[in-house]
Amino acid sequence: MQAELLTIGDEILIGQIINTNAVWMAKELNYIGVSIKQITSVSDNKNHIIEALDAALNRADVVLITGGLGPTKDDITKTTLSEYFNVGLKKEERVIDFIKENFVKRGIQYLPVHEQQAMILENSEILFNHNGTAPGMWIEHNGKIIICMPGVPFEMRGIMSKYVLPKLKTQFQLPVIIHKTLVTIGLPESTLADMIAEVEDSMPNHIKLAYLPNFGLVRLRLSGIGKDKNILQSSMEDYASQILEIIPKDNIGATEDLKPEEIIGKLLINTKQTLAIAESCTGGYISHLVTTVPGSSEYFIGSLIAYSYQIKINNLGVKAETLEKYGAVSEECVREMVEGIKKNFKTDFAISTTGIAGPGGATADKPVGLVWIAVAGPHGIVTRKIIANGERINVIERTSLVALDMLRREILKD
Amino acid sequence: MQAELLTIGDEILIGQIINTNAVWMAKELNYIGVSIKQITSVSDNKNHIIEALDAALNRADVVLITGGLGPTKDDITKTTLSEYFNVGLKKEERVIDFIKENFVKRGIQYLPVHEQQAMILENSEILFNHNGTAPGMWIEHNGKIIICMPGVPFEMRGIMSKYVLPKLKTQFQLPVIIHKTLVTIGLPESTLADMIAEVEDSMPNHIKLAYLPNFGLVRLRLSGIGKDKNILQSSMEDYASQILEIIPKDNIGATEDLKPEEIIGKLLINTKQTLAIAESCTGGYISHLVTTVPGSSEYFIGSLIAYSYQIKINNLGVKAETLEKYGAVSEECVREMVEGIKKNFKTDFAISTTGIAGPGGATADKPVGLVWIAVAGPHGIVTRKIIANGERINVIERTSLVALDMLRREILKD
Repeated sequence: MQAELLTIGDEILIGQIINTNAVWMAKELNYIGVSIKQITSVSDNKNHIIEALDAALNRADVVLITGGLGPTKDDITKTTLSEYFNVGLKKEERVIDFIKENFVKRGIQYLPVHEQQAMILENSEILFNHNGTAPGMWIEHNGKIIICMPGVPFEMRGIMSKYVLPKLKTQFQLPVIIHKTLVTIGLPESTLADMIAEVEDSMPNHIKLAYLPNFGLVRLRLSGIGKDKNILQSSMEDYASQILEIIPKDNIGATEDLKPEEIIGKLLINTKQTLAIAESCTGGYISHLVTTVPGSSEYFIGSLIAYSYQIKINNLGVKAETLEKYGAVSEECVREMVEGIKKNFKTDFAISTTGIAGPGGATADKPVGLVWIAVAGPHGIVTRKIIANGERINVIERTSLVALDMLRREILKD
Repeated sequence: MQAELLTIGDEILIGQIINTNAVWMAKELNYIGVSIKQITSVSDNKNHIIEALDAALNRADVVLITGGLGPTKDDITKTTLSEYFNVGLKKEERVIDFIKENFVKRGIQYLPVHEQQAMILENSEILFNHNGTAPGMWIEHNGKIIICMPGVPFEMRGIMSKYVLPKLKTQFQLPVIIHKTLVTIGLPESTLADMIAEVEDSMPNHIKLAYLPNFGLVRLRLSGIGKDKNILQSSMEDYASQILEIIPKDNIGATEDLKPEEIIGKLLINTKQTLAIAESCTGGYISHLVTTVPGSSEYFIGSLIAYSYQIKINNLGVKAETLEKYGAVSEECVREMVEGIKKNFKTDFAISTTGIAGPGGATADKPVGLVWIAVAGPHGIVTRKIIANGERINVIERTSLVALDMLRREILKD
C-alpha cells in the first residue's frame, strides 16, 4: 500500500520552517508497512493544492494532508477540499464541546472564531485533536483515503498516533518493510562502495542498499519489502553479515540505526563507566546530544560550559598563564580543560572542546573553524585539532561528532 | 520567476533524515527574489523521477534537483537525466584534476570509482564541488534551467552559494520579495486572528499574512511581492505598525524574525548584562540555543549541566536535605540551583531547570513532563512549574522556550 504526504503552507516554501512533520509521518508510516511514494509541499493556493492532491491520488491509495486547517484567513484547506470533493461543510457540535472542555481546562476563553473549527467536510469523519482546536478529518473517496490534519507538529502527532495509524492498520493488509542500518565511520562513500561492490551486485530486487553520508559517517541502509517477516529478516541479516565481514572493525560504529550519542551511550552502560564534558565552542551541544538519549543519567554526570576565561580558570583549573601564552584555542588549554572536568566531576571519561565557531573571533594564525578536542580516559588523554568548514552551527555539529567518535575509540581501546 | 525543488532519495521518504536541504535552499532563493512553487521528494526510482521532473518543468522556470549524484549504485540521477534529455555523458578531465587535488590535500587515496564523478551530462556545464567529489551540473533545456546538486548538505550549500545563486541573479530580472515577521508570545492563534481581523481584511492582494504557531509563540509573517523595493517596504511596515498597535506590548517578542535566543541576546547586549545557566533535565539544550547566536560570548558566561545529585550539591550548592526532603524536581531545588549558578558565575541573570524529561523517572506524584524552571535577576527569583506533553525531546524543547521567555520578561521588568 502506498501513501503520499501533502504539506500545505507558505512557511515551508519560503524556508521559514523545516518540514519536521514529513520525517515523523514517513517514519511512523514506514514502521507499520506503508511506503511513501512522494512528499509534496505546496503553498496556500487553491488551484495548486487541487492539482497536487489530484496527482497524489492518481499515484497512491492514501494521501495525508497537513496544514491550513486553522481558523485564520490563510487557512484554506477546508474550502479547497470542499470544492474538490464537491461537498459542503457540516457543523459538528461534538467538536465545540470538545474544544470548550479542553480550553476551559487550560484557562483560555472560548471565542466565536472557534466555532469555525467545528465546521468539517460533509464526507468526513472527525479525528479529535487532543492538543489543539482544529480537528482532523478522515475522508473516503472513490476507493482512496484522504486524511487532513493540522500542521502544528504536536497536534498532528497526537491525531496520527491515536487515530490514523490504528485505522490504517485495520483497513489495509500491510506488507512487511524492514530497514537494517550499518553505521560506518571514517570511510568515504566511494571507498565503501568499492569495498562492498560484489555483495551489492548479488542482492535481490526486493532488497535495496542506500549510502547516507554525513560528516565522516556513512550509514549503509538495507531496505527490504516482503510478505514473510522471518524470511525477509534472515535474508537481510545475511547480506548485512557479508558486508560487515568486509569493512574493517574499527570503521563500524554500530550494526543498527544508532546516532553517535546512542553508540557511546550503549558502550558506557555496558561497561558501567561515566562521562563528564567541558565545552567551550560547542556551547552545550555535545551535552545536549548525550542527554537526548533516554537513560543517559546512568552514565552522564554533568558538564561545564566554560564560555568565558573566568570559568575556564575558576571552575576547570585552566592556568591563567596557559591562556596568556597559548590562548584558549590551543592544545594546552583543551588538555587542561579535560583534566579539570574529569577530576572535578570524578568520571571515567571526559571530553573537552575549545575553538572558534565564528563568524567572529578569528586571528591571523587561528581561522574560524579551528577547534581543539580532547578525550580523557583510563588510557590517558588524546587530543585532536580539526578545521571545520561552514557556518557557526556546522562547526559546532562537526566538532561534536568528532568528539563523540574520539570518545568511542577510547572506550573501545583495550 | 518561479522555481521548484526536487529531492531524490529514499532516506527522506522513509523518515530517516529531515529535509534540511529544502529549507536552506528555499530561504536562499527567496532572499534573492525567486519564489518556490513546490517542493517534491521522490525515491531513487527512474520513472518517478522523470514524472516529477516533467511536472515541475511544466510549472516552473527553474528546477533544482538534489541527491543521487554519488558514485554508488543507488545514485541514479545522472542516468535518469541522460534518458530524459536524450543526451549522453561526457568525461570532464577538469573534474578528475579537481578531485585529485582536493583528495590529496585531505590525505585520501584516489580510487577508480572517482572516475565516474567526472562523467557529466553532455548538455551540462560543471558546477565544481569544493566540499566533495560529485560536481553539480547546470543544464539549459527548452528555455528552462535544471540544476543538479549532490544531496550532502554542506556540498550542496557550497555549490549553491558559489555558483547557483550568483548565476540566477545574472540570468533573471528578479522581483522584490519581502518578508516581515512579528513574533508574538502567549496568545493563541485564534485570539490573535480575532484581534487583527480588520487589518488583515484591509490588506492588498500582493501582501499576504500567515500565522505560524509553535509552543506558545505565534509568528505573524507578512509576505509582499512587488517591483519597487521602497514602496513595498513602506507599505508592509505600515501594516505591521497597524498590527503592533493592536497586540498588547507584553505579547510582542520581536518585530523581526528572531528566535527566542536571539531576542534575549539582543536584550542582554543592549543592556550590557550577563547570563549563566544551570541545567538538569534540559541537559545543555538552553546553553546550546543561547550559543548558536553569533556574539553570544559577550553576555553568556557559562553553564553547569548538573545531571547528577553529586554535581547539584558540590558545584551548585544545592543542600543535600533539599534533595532528600523535596527531591531534585522541586521548587526548592530549582531555586537553590539558580541561586548557586548566579553566585558562582557572578552574572546579572541566571536560569535553572530541573524536571522529568522521560520516558523513565516518573513517580506517583511527579509525572513525565513535570519541570520546574527558575530565573534569577535584579528583581529576585521567579519560578514556574510546567507539565510538558510529548516525548523526551519535546519536554526539553518546551522547557527551553518557556525558560527563555521567563528570562525575556525579567530583563524587561522596570
